[in-house]
Amino acid sequence: MSRFWSPFVHALTPYTPGEQPRHQNFIKLNTNENPFGPSPLALEGIRSATDDGLRRYPDPSSVELRRAISATLGLEGDHVFIGNGSDEVLAHSFNAFFREKGTIHFPDVTYSFYRTYCSLYGLPFCEIPLDEAFRCDPSQYRGRSGGIVIANPNAPTGIAMKLKGIEEILERNTDIVVIVDEAYVDFGAQSAAELVPRYENLVVVQTFSKSRSLAGLRVGFAVAQPHLIDALVRVKDSFNSYPVGSLALAGALGAWSDQDWFDKTRRQVMVSRDRMAGALKELGFRVPLSAVNFLFVSHERVPAEEILMELRSRGVLVRHFKQDRIRNWLRVSVGTPDECEKFLEAIADIVERVPTSNNIG
Amino acid sequence: MSRFWSPFVHALTPYTPGEQPRHQNFIKLNTNENPFGPSPLALEGIRSATDDGLRRYPDPSSVELRRAISATLGLEGDHVFIGNGSDEVLAHSFNAFFREKGTIHFPDVTYSFYRTYCSLYGLPFCEIPLDEAFRCDPSQYRGRSGGIVIANPNAPTGIAMKLKGIEEILERNTDIVVIVDEAYVDFGAQSAAELVPRYENLVVVQTFSKSRSLAGLRVGFAVAQPHLIDALVRVKDSFNSYPVGSLALAGALGAWSDQDWFDKTRRQVMVSRDRMAGALKELGFRVPLSAVNFLFVSHERVPAEEILMELRSRGVLVRHFKQDRIRNWLRVSVGTPDECEKFLEAIADIVERVPTSNNIG
Repeated sequence: MSRFWSPFVHALTPYTPGEQPRHQNFIKLNTNENPFGPSPLALEGIRSATDDGLRRYPDPSSVELRRAISATLGLEGDHVFIGNGSDEVLAHSFNAFFREKGTIHFPDVTYSFYRTYCSLYGLPFCEIPLDEAFRCDPSQYRGRSGGIVIANPNAPTGIAMKLKGIEEILERNTDIVVIVDEAYVDFGAQSAAELVPRYENLVVVQTFSKSRSLAGLRVGFAVAQPHLIDALVRVKDSFNSYPVGSLALAGALGAWSDQDWFDKTRRQVMVSRDRMAGALKELGFRVPLSAVNFLFVSHERVPAEEILMELRSRGVLVRHFKQDRIRNWLRVSVGTPDECEKFLEAIADIVERVPTSNNIG
Repeated sequence: MSRFWSPFVHALTPYTPGEQPRHQNFIKLNTNENPFGPSPLALEGIRSATDDGLRRYPDPSSVELRRAISATLGLEGDHVFIGNGSDEVLAHSFNAFFREKGTIHFPDVTYSFYRTYCSLYGLPFCEIPLDEAFRCDPSQYRGRSGGIVIANPNAPTGIAMKLKGIEEILERNTDIVVIVDEAYVDFGAQSAAELVPRYENLVVVQTFSKSRSLAGLRVGFAVAQPHLIDALVRVKDSFNSYPVGSLALAGALGAWSDQDWFDKTRRQVMVSRDRMAGALKELGFRVPLSAVNFLFVSHERVPAEEILMELRSRGVLVRHFKQDRIRNWLRVSVGTPDECEKFLEAIADIVERVPTSNNIG
């Protein structure tokens, strides 16, 4: 606290990212990173941009990458906006479309950064409860004002909504912007990007951090009609003209061009995920059907925080959120086959051996 | 324009970055890039981070880089904040220290992004005129409220203020934050970073884009007392937890460690600059004493916009700003010795041959 802070800074509730231990021997299943490395073409792209050319500013409009992405989607380049990770794209989107627009709507259990953006921009928000099985009911979003943001698949639940549900929300809210955050879409859900030409109020946000395995590069993007992209560009150019560096652009371009690597690695993740889900169910876990690269799990007998601490003491990091409704749940990223196996061994050991009354802490 | 935009987006006046031609044979003296490449240690650092580790998120707190920078300054790591280029650091600083604080003060001729940040955050501002020789008079900044931002050296004038002047501003404004933007400080001015331990209201902002020749990487930083750094961290963690990628961190760390390269290249730039200034004066240009890697020039006879267009047609890009007081001035980056020579040849040709009445357009 300091008298020099802007007043709103005191009231901010910043997002808490998952732990990134720097000197680690941990099996790190806490931040939904891809267990496989990025495409060799991404690394090649970065290597060939690692030269004296770094003295130059990057292309402020990311033209080449926008063209590559939009071409895949069958759109023109003016339908895509590139940012410094999808978090920045989301932050600019909240600013560009939601400020002074009224109440912003999102599920009660979802990516917690949405609440944080609301505190950053001073936006009132309304959390719409997921149903008892953590499913999002589109009919709950009929005729809302202000704005709507839906993570699809949702995090940390991992549950996907069908495109029909997204479309229902778009159709029932034609006067406000609906942001669909598709950070995890490539692991088993259907992207709303194909709806962009038909809905002038739709902003689809994706990232290179998960399915493209480039969390270290910081590249995300939005797909929307040009009149919405224009607003993002105006906000971006009033904040930071060059948000995405030359190496990030080169790496993302390489990754985007390698469809084979993309398909192969995401399929492997999905296979591991489904195996892991099966094994966890056998151990007495509830595991909602996952369409992402992580599982959301809760044990019938052993409390989540106990499992969290026990896993940590065995060198395995998973994520726990201190929110009432999901206090007894853990989010576990899908690791390499070897990491998944070690995780399963550890967690089997915990649920079988740890007495439930044992108060860890 | 679109009904979906947040109302403030309509009123934004985004910053216009200098042209970055993508398929170029231009001699590019328009964006103050370093004519020399980055340190080989920077490239080495990037290369060794270009591997499967990119699947992981970067260190969200940039601990190693903060420690390296603060150690050089004789400070603890909690005195440094790292951002995605100094523009992002400035944007967060305006948000963290100036929002709802009153009128923000800066010179009438300075980095035009300050006005843009004010429009982004809805801050009233007051432009304090530089004197007739474009010098900043610290006594004009006595007892201001709200906030102050000073580029030192100033841009696009290239003129440095003595540290005594900065200190006078700090002493006469102990209740508000004073941001000193030192993007160009390493080319001949004295940094206010040494004043940080004595002034609780001082934020010094620097960049790796100019003297470290890493414009393509996007790394900037702030130096301030921990209570101010805390506010920047709160704002950053409410916007984007991972603003600086792994390759940017590795490259910046390499560049920061190479003091020899840093000293050698910035000295070469200063030598070229002073030679260029001498030659331009002989051609009839006014050239204020430059403490940066560019010159601010105005010809006694040939209008700036005419020179701009003529240079462009000869394959040389320089920067012109459409602001009344400096409409007849050009900003020319210091290039390699060869680029400087070609620029001087071209400009000599222009001022000697082009008739002043010729209306280019």
